[in-house]
Amino acid sequence: MFEKLTLIGIGLIGSSIARAVKLKGLAKTIAITTRKSATLEEARALGLGDSYTLDAAEAVEGADLVILCTPVGVYAEVMQQISGHLAPGAILSDVGSVKGQVMKALEPMVPAGVHFIPGHPIAGTEHSGPSAGFPDLFVGRWCVLTPKPEVDAVAVDRLVSFWGALGSNVEVMDAAHHDLVLAITSHVPHLIAYNIVGTVADLEAATQSEVIKFSASGFRDFTRIAASDPVMWRDVFLTNREAVLEMLGRFLEDLSSLQRMVRVGDGEGMQALFTRTRAIRRSIITAGQETAAPDFGRPHG
Amino acid sequence: MFEKLTLIGIGLIGSSIARAVKLKGLAKTIAITTRKSATLEEARALGLGDSYTLDAAEAVEGADLVILCTPVGVYAEVMQQISGHLAPGAILSDVGSVKGQVMKALEPMVPAGVHFIPGHPIAGTEHSGPSAGFPDLFVGRWCVLTPKPEVDAVAVDRLVSFWGALGSNVEVMDAAHHDLVLAITSHVPHLIAYNIVGTVADLEAATQSEVIKFSASGFRDFTRIAASDPVMWRDVFLTNREAVLEMLGRFLEDLSSLQRMVRVGDGEGMQALFTRTRAIRRSIITAGQETAAPDFGRPHG
Ligand SMILES: NC(=O)c1ccc[n+]([C@@H]2O[C@H](COP(=O)([O-])OP(=O)(O)OC[C@H]3O[C@@H](n4cnc5c(N)ncnc54)[C@H](OP(=O)(O)O)[C@@H]3O)[C@@H](O)[C@H]2O)c1
Ligand SMILES: NC(=O)c1ccc[n+]([C@@H]2O[C@H](COP(=O)([O-])OP(=O)(O)OC[C@H]3O[C@@H](n4cnc5c(N)ncnc54)[C@H](OP(=O)(O)O)[C@@H]3O)[C@@H](O)[C@H]2O)c1
Repeated sequence: MFEKLTLIGIGLIGSSIARAVKLKGLAKTIAITTRKSATLEEARALGLGDSYTLDAAEAVEGADLVILCTPVGVYAEVMQQISGHLAPGAILSDVGSVKGQVMKALEPMVPAGVHFIPGHPIAGTEHSGPSAGFPDLFVGRWCVLTPKPEVDAVAVDRLVSFWGALGSNVEVMDAAHHDLVLAITSHVPHLIAYNIVGTVADLEAATQSEVIKFSASGFRDFTRIAASDPVMWRDVFLTNREAVLEMLGRFLEDLSSLQRMVRVGDGEGMQALFTRTRAIRRSIITAGQETAAPDFGRPHG
Repeated sequence: MFEKLTLIGIGLIGSSIARAVKLKGLAKTIAITTRKSATLEEARALGLGDSYTLDAAEAVEGADLVILCTPVGVYAEVMQQISGHLAPGAILSDVGSVKGQVMKALEPMVPAGVHFIPGHPIAGTEHSGPSAGFPDLFVGRWCVLTPKPEVDAVAVDRLVSFWGALGSNVEVMDAAHHDLVLAITSHVPHLIAYNIVGTVADLEAATQSEVIKFSASGFRDFTRIAASDPVMWRDVFLTNREAVLEMLGRFLEDLSSLQRMVRVGDGEGMQALFTRTRAIRRSIITAGQETAAPDFGRPHG
């Protein structure tokens, strides 16, 4: 479908794209570039692409699809290296978890004739690096594309088909809307998870070791997303500040009211809330976005 | 090992005990009692015990081990029914998630000659009822016992061996300490999960359906524990108020500081916190309390 796909950054997401593209034959060649030579060699040893270079400018030469798969904080730096080397007619996309501010920063650097179509596959795990990826990562998950309205519709369609071929459902939406929805769906959950794990990390050593022993009672669930890549998440909070603070504000308002229910012993209020929240999980399972197995299907015994 | 085990309440925990006890031959007979006849018939159809009755007083006659497996809020009511019928020398235990206040309420009702040894298996899933249980639930998990110091040591040893035979590691500790550790390990995580799912439930319908579609990006993790039984959790927050409010206070202090980092764009501070939190998950995996598989081993693709 594409002649040459260039992946800039080859961690969890980049390497999952590489694997799936190879498996489905969605590009004739895959060029891989990254920052560290150790990472490049890891990608080479895994056979993820067809050509490997530390020179991003070289990697994008002649590519008709270029996807940034690095933390969003280094986009500007990467663009400076590649913008003079992008082929006319190429699609430039990314997989970053934040869209609005990132687009604002990059747009002025996109050469005329290049189709800039930002993207965000809503799929991932807490692991990082080239070895963490797998080709099924995107199957049954959503991928959001946030092109400006004036972007070439044919190019958008090509990218929609690309993600569809990777197994995703694709939705095109406005970047600001994406950032608000993802703030409550992903960014605030990560912030809260990092925060409670931080609270535990500050407990005296004896108590902390008990929390670890007894963590199957709830806490361990939060440690998964709090084990995600620190740089990626720092960049998310640096670039989606407004939406994160807005949604965190709503969360905190609600928490004040729940805290009050606990303080005054409002059993009826608590039971009503705890009953209402069950329906949401059922909807997620029905939507095919979660397993129905108890305990996420974790192994027992 | 025991002549007659009586289980009062036969939901997730009670039915898991019944299954494991049968499998390992830890009691000659198992008597089951519960509130609703539909639940009793479900237990009978599953073959969980040897005798079934809605009369708790009858169920405990001649039992040398009685375990309360109901929500903690109905303990006093249950005790009123059974206290005159407990056999001298019997061990009376429970599986409730809160210990201090529950012990204070029950102790005056425990007849002399009965060994009152409260317990809490740190194991569970988000599902409820007799069909949700399975015999491996307690394997490799901890069980905390919180007897008063004056309780007969031989009886405590018998109960320690019982839980050991179910596959658990057993720890004996003070009830107040249990409640503080569990407040941060289990109760505050549940409170926060219920709260964020409640925040989403309050979003306008269109946004809410997007949150559901995109929930694989973090939110769905929180919906699991927020799908736990509303009555059980109401009772936990009604009976462990002090410790929950104390730990929630620490969480909120930390969250204020993290909120500030986001607001002022303190990338260094965020990265440091997000790096520190990774170590905790590694410790939990090393302690055998969590799977090392990405995404909890959820099915992909
Ligand atoms: N993880 C998720 O769940 C998830 C989900 C959806 C979207 N995303 C987005 O996907 C992007 C990548 O995330 P990931 O999980 O794949 O991260 P990752 O596994 O940590 O991989 C990041 C990759 O970027 C490379 N990189 C970093 N700085 C670079 C630079 N200056 N120049 C070139 N390459 C550089 C890294 O290579 P070196 O080792 O060479 O530095 C690494 O190969 C992020 O923007 C994130 O927001 C992540
Ligand atoms: N779920 C967990 O993850 C977990 C983990 C550790 C400890 N615990 C503790 O275990 C206990 C039970 O939890 P669970 O998860 O097993 O709950 P569950 O599946 O909802 O079962 C509760 C059982 O209690 C019975 N019950 C309720 N009110 C009763 C009454 N007045 N008299 C007699 N039986 C009554 C219910 O029977 P009917 O249908 O007849 O009402 C049901 O069989 C709770 O105290 C909880 O704190 C739970």
